[in-house]
Amino acid sequence: MNPPGWHSPGNWRNALRILISNDDGAFNPALWAMVEAVKDLGEVLVAAPDRDRSGVGAGLTLNDPVRVKSIMSPVSGVEAWAVEGTPGDSVILGLRQLAKEPIDLLLSGINTGNNIGTDLIVSGTVGAGMQGFMNGVASAAISVAIERDALSPVVGAAIHDLAESMLEHVAAGGPTPFVNINFPRISDGPYRGAMVAGVGRRVVADAVETVTRGTRTMYWIQRRASALDERSQMDPDTDVWAMHHSWVSVTSLGAGLTSANNDGFAAGIAEVLDRSVKNHGQQADEAAG
Amino acid sequence: MNPPGWHSPGNWRNALRILISNDDGAFNPALWAMVEAVKDLGEVLVAAPDRDRSGVGAGLTLNDPVRVKSIMSPVSGVEAWAVEGTPGDSVILGLRQLAKEPIDLLLSGINTGNNIGTDLIVSGTVGAGMQGFMNGVASAAISVAIERDALSPVVGAAIHDLAESMLEHVAAGGPTPFVNINFPRISDGPYRGAMVAGVGRRVVADAVETVTRGTRTMYWIQRRASALDERSQMDPDTDVWAMHHSWVSVTSLGAGLTSANNDGFAAGIAEVLDRSVKNHGQQADEAAG
Amino acid sequence: MNPPGWHSPGNWRNALRILISNDDGAFNPALWAMVEAVKDLGEVLVAAPDRDRSGVGAGLTLNDPVRVKSIMSPVSGVEAWAVEGTPGDSVILGLRQLAKEPIDLLLSGINTGNNIGTDLIVSGTVGAGMQGFMNGVASAAISVAIERDALSPVVGAAIHDLAESMLEHVAAGGPTPFVNINFPRISDGPYRGAMVAGVGRRVVADAVETVTRGTRTMYWIQRRASALDERSQMDPDTDVWAMHHSWVSVTSLGAGLTSANNDGFAAGIAEVLDRSVKNHGQQADEAAG
Amino acid sequence: MNPPGWHSPGNWRNALRILISNDDGAFNPALWAMVEAVKDLGEVLVAAPDRDRSGVGAGLTLNDPVRVKSIMSPVSGVEAWAVEGTPGDSVILGLRQLAKEPIDLLLSGINTGNNIGTDLIVSGTVGAGMQGFMNGVASAAISVAIERDALSPVVGAAIHDLAESMLEHVAAGGPTPFVNINFPRISDGPYRGAMVAGVGRRVVADAVETVTRGTRTMYWIQRRASALDERSQMDPDTDVWAMHHSWVSVTSLGAGLTSANNDGFAAGIAEVLDRSVKNHGQQADEAAG
Repeated sequence: MNPPGWHSPGNWRNALRILISNDDGAFNPALWAMVEAVKDLGEVLVAAPDRDRSGVGAGLTLNDPVRVKSIMSPVSGVEAWAVEGTPGDSVILGLRQLAKEPIDLLLSGINTGNNIGTDLIVSGTVGAGMQGFMNGVASAAISVAIERDALSPVVGAAIHDLAESMLEHVAAGGPTPFVNINFPRISDGPYRGAMVAGVGRRVVADAVETVTRGTRTMYWIQRRASALDERSQMDPDTDVWAMHHSWVSVTSLGAGLTSANNDGFAAGIAEVLDRSVKNHGQQADEAAG
Repeated sequence: MNPPGWHSPGNWRNALRILISNDDGAFNPALWAMVEAVKDLGEVLVAAPDRDRSGVGAGLTLNDPVRVKSIMSPVSGVEAWAVEGTPGDSVILGLRQLAKEPIDLLLSGINTGNNIGTDLIVSGTVGAGMQGFMNGVASAAISVAIERDALSPVVGAAIHDLAESMLEHVAAGGPTPFVNINFPRISDGPYRGAMVAGVGRRVVADAVETVTRGTRTMYWIQRRASALDERSQMDPDTDVWAMHHSWVSVTSLGAGLTSANNDGFAAGIAEVLDRSVKNHGQQADEAAG
Repeated sequence: MNPPGWHSPGNWRNALRILISNDDGAFNPALWAMVEAVKDLGEVLVAAPDRDRSGVGAGLTLNDPVRVKSIMSPVSGVEAWAVEGTPGDSVILGLRQLAKEPIDLLLSGINTGNNIGTDLIVSGTVGAGMQGFMNGVASAAISVAIERDALSPVVGAAIHDLAESMLEHVAAGGPTPFVNINFPRISDGPYRGAMVAGVGRRVVADAVETVTRGTRTMYWIQRRASALDERSQMDPDTDVWAMHHSWVSVTSLGAGLTSANNDGFAAGIAEVLDRSVKNHGQQADEAAG
Repeated sequence: MNPPGWHSPGNWRNALRILISNDDGAFNPALWAMVEAVKDLGEVLVAAPDRDRSGVGAGLTLNDPVRVKSIMSPVSGVEAWAVEGTPGDSVILGLRQLAKEPIDLLLSGINTGNNIGTDLIVSGTVGAGMQGFMNGVASAAISVAIERDALSPVVGAAIHDLAESMLEHVAAGGPTPFVNINFPRISDGPYRGAMVAGVGRRVVADAVETVTRGTRTMYWIQRRASALDERSQMDPDTDVWAMHHSWVSVTSLGAGLTSANNDGFAAGIAEVLDRSVKNHGQQADEAAG
């Protein structure tokens, strides 16, 4: 996959290609702040939803064909596509259809609002990174606490350094990484540094609002703005804790949803089902017959 | 949460409530096969998408209010709602708005097509289970290999026994479980039994088809039908292996996406970011000022 | 198109086929009230949107394939389809794909809320009728003032008589008709009778509500409930007047949007353009070259 | 509504405001060709769907709030909004929410593909014009035969002259006009001139394509490209004829869908209903009781 001369000092950057996506949409200024932060590291391609698609996780549009349109890029030399689909669709189409050459690094974000704790499952920012990772591309999902922080020089410099480091890892032939990076709110105080963090187990904060128009009742599901506003578990190894204490968090993610916590329960269920399917084996034979 | 007399022999079942959802839609016959299988265990409520929403994972509809409509139930005594949203929306609204009393067990499925390996991230069946679990309700996602198997007596009996066992676990006050159950293709041979299995790491099988109408080009993302048709990793501890060898698989799931595999990489990235944000601390102060 | 024996006394009804659609969705009780009203006149097929699609006029889904699903019919012997599209899609698919034999009559409704005055342009009830008419099928759009009136025996009997009369017209080989029928609010007093009425020119009543969630501002376009609540023009030849005075209105519709009112203006514009294109003819030649 | 000095020679143009919309989306080059053609006539505001919404007619989004986003304009000094809704939504929000001052003229297009004959009912280009007209604003829907023609100087000059003439009409206090303008294919020969034309009654050309994916069958409704390719009625007073004979057509439109052709039929139906509701009057009284 690497072009000839990839490892030669001095010229390897010329051949690098970065795909940038997000879940707030291709027109979101925070995405373009990320483009600015990394554009000197290689060729940058943008493929992102044409609308805000927050909350759709790693979901794909499987039931309909997806349209894409080329859009004007505010950053010179950057090709940009608005995808009429999810963040996951954008990454898959970016990697396989829109990029003319293989992509070396996927960056998703900059998301406004930290993606920590149980946010990860529904986060489109993390979902875009997940689709990149599952397609074998080094991926990072990147979020700040509030909109203004996405334009901060300290965040821009950190993203630049992150991308450079990931590209070096890729160039060195390391295994495909997938990290979730969160920047705490800058106005809470200067960053103390960066730390490896697990995913916090904070309480789900979905609110369901009842909306009435005419004679119709509807329900509007809403997520509270930020874990920072909540009484969340104060485990110092977690991303939630990191956000509360002005540490940038780095969480290593994977595609597995497995949990070792309930293994005893699973074993008990396996025994129940084992008995059940053996007892009903005769019917199975008949059903298959 | 438990009603008085919950543990008294003979009557605890009367008070139990099961919510059934899926991602193939409230009109899918396989959902109603599951209703039939468990209806004697308690009060059953159906809340499922009004359309096929395969592939949307645990995603939620956050940008618009969601409408629900009461639909005719083919099973007497069962209240059913079609939700104009995702499987995750259906579960959240089912638990919080449509159920008149707290739900004891969420069953998602029966999905046509196994949800194994990397399918889990985009599976709406698993996504519905995930939203149940994250809302503190014992949850199971249940899939068969092909449509016909959902109507098989052996599968029906196994689901009945699974649900009964999970309800007993809940009644006994155990921690909230979340399991992913897959039934192999019956026509491949009688089930050998059931086993605890991890999530297999099979190759992603998305295909992107180019569709042209008039002068427009579109892209249609499609998932191959089943891991059974693929050359997947033959690790005997996985759900993929189980499906190949006629074992019913039980996988314990959680909401974490974390991976321990790349911890070394995450530590390196944390160091890079640590240096970066400390070096650029002055700018951060200014940006926050 | 007519089956043999069509005109023979006594048996022509057996061969008749009525397609029923609406814009409130296939699960709306008022649609099924219409099915009940006409089911003795021939074979009834229902094809209607699977969701409320009020306000979409005669619009079609051209950019994506449309899915349909068979649904349980509350009326014995009636086949029913829920279409994941617009009222217009439903009629086109009902006529061309779902009906096994040619349709003789399209009935759209019963809509809750009169479709009068400027409502006609955005009414999905009228839009469904329009697509029937444009496909060469005798069509009627039918609306009542409030939900309860759709279940009234007087409305049911009138729809029965309307359908019978239209089927007789079709059987006699008359030109394809398209009528818009509105029933005034029953609680305003007993119907005085029925009258031919033009389309009233009442003031457009769209309201735009600003909705804010988080930092996002949205706009919700809403139509006021009924012309009956408005100070509308009191022209005694119009549907608006008819509703105010307890007359059932019958308005003959066509597919033309033309107006004779501005013909002088159009002539002036044609002169302007005539001069313009003749003056710029040379460029046209070049552009075409 | 007119600012002071409106009629004074020399300065009235400064105060004029033109809203431009379409149904092919805010990013369509043909829309921006229209902006270029008229930008010297006043202040131009663009509000158009963020996606191709062809085929939705004058339909509105009533069931959900509509989001808008400011987009980069390729034409200096022009404010542009992408509306996550229909052409009709775009016009209503453009007129009432996005424009800071009252709009004097709405131009919809330039549509690629003529909107003639029965196209008018489902055309989003005409639908946008209809919503402008129904909101009391002078409106024109403008279409060319093929994409390339939208960039032709002769079309640009004609649109400029059309807009200027309509603005003069508005400034003179004339009644609100609504015209549909179609430019024939330039490559068929130089324009012979412009003519007032009625709406041709050409045969509906919808095609329904059956699409199969996996076990699912779907239906894709498609419109044939152009009336020019069809055996349409050769009535020399119609837009269809004009397109065949290289005449620019000007058709005066209104919001009425009424037809005088079937008045005899409507009278017969009114008699039937009159008898019916009088006969069933007693039930009506009871239902209302």
